[in-house]
Amino acid sequence: MFKVYGDKKSGNCYKVQLLLTQLDQPFEWVDVDIMKNESRTQEFRAKNANGKIPLLEIDGETHLAESNAIMHYLASGSDLLPADRLLQARVLQWLFFEQYSHEPYIATSRYIIQYLGRPAEMEATLAEKQPRGYAALDVMEQQLSGHDFLVGDAFSIADIGLYAYTHVAHEGGFDLARYPAIRAWFGRVEGQEKFVEMAY
Amino acid sequence: MFKVYGDKKSGNCYKVQLLLTQLDQPFEWVDVDIMKNESRTQEFRAKNANGKIPLLEIDGETHLAESNAIMHYLASGSDLLPADRLLQARVLQWLFFEQYSHEPYIATSRYIIQYLGRPAEMEATLAEKQPRGYAALDVMEQQLSGHDFLVGDAFSIADIGLYAYTHVAHEGGFDLARYPAIRAWFGRVEGQEKFVEMAY
Repeated sequence: MFKVYGDKKSGNCYKVQLLLTQLDQPFEWVDVDIMKNESRTQEFRAKNANGKIPLLEIDGETHLAESNAIMHYLASGSDLLPADRLLQARVLQWLFFEQYSHEPYIATSRYIIQYLGRPAEMEATLAEKQPRGYAALDVMEQQLSGHDFLVGDAFSIADIGLYAYTHVAHEGGFDLARYPAIRAWFGRVEGQEKFVEMAY
Repeated sequence: MFKVYGDKKSGNCYKVQLLLTQLDQPFEWVDVDIMKNESRTQEFRAKNANGKIPLLEIDGETHLAESNAIMHYLASGSDLLPADRLLQARVLQWLFFEQYSHEPYIATSRYIIQYLGRPAEMEATLAEKQPRGYAALDVMEQQLSGHDFLVGDAFSIADIGLYAYTHVAHEGGFDLARYPAIRAWFGRVEGQEKFVEMAY
């Protein structure tokens, strides 16, 4: 049985929880509290040298890190990851977009506000993140204005990957009112079989 | 024939150039100057809404963005991307690590120094990036101390992806003298058939 080291309030960890649930794969969840540096201990780093969650334990000794690489592994061979070469690369395009152009602005703003309690000395950082976070939302809005899902008009791990932090973007100070296509897509993601909400 | 929109001094673009060369795939290169905002024009955004290079044009109308997704597409079915489910996910783990934990510190420092001319007001930003860049190099050094390549002891797009900005990390102010395993790996990457150097 898979074991997942993670924090259910983290979007990156929620991706793995949601996917395993939708794939009907049983798993054991091990809570790791990043606020207590539990992912930075020597013991944890023996499992993931980069000291980050989520981390998938596959057979008791094999570990896989990076939420989107974990999703690729788990969804491989299922309907949630197209086998077609171009469509699969397109899924990855969205997942790399998520980690480079979306997460560092939208998820990080949420972290500063929700986890760190919005300290005054981070207001400038938050302000800097706003235009780049909105730029990422603009890219998603454009795609979703003409398509039901991000890739090939079918629900895939690209949607899980982007849904995770986008649906809580307001907790990072982003106003989603101006994004009707994204909000309609939330409904389609939440309407998938075996959907589970993120823990709060 | 493939067309690549890029800047040969950019590590992200170099990944695509190096891979296409190693795969013996002919391609046309279209220079895009990000310092002149050529990737932000309306014409370019019609090809890639996110306004970034590199961008692969596949058949005259289909475009694929994100360097690591482009590499996955191009290397699919070749020796440079393992077909095995876990090994392929491990390649992706390193490529997501590259985009999230490595590039924003190492490549961005190089950009500030080499492209922007190290403006005084960015010294604090550069200083902040140092420990996280070194943390990424530490993770690579640990892996490469026991292995010839990043995944499965065979050269793959994980190596191309990490080589691109690591071998010019000194241009971003990082001292590679303390990383013997990384430097030995540089030699193994550069010793691959049809290796081409990055343009300067």
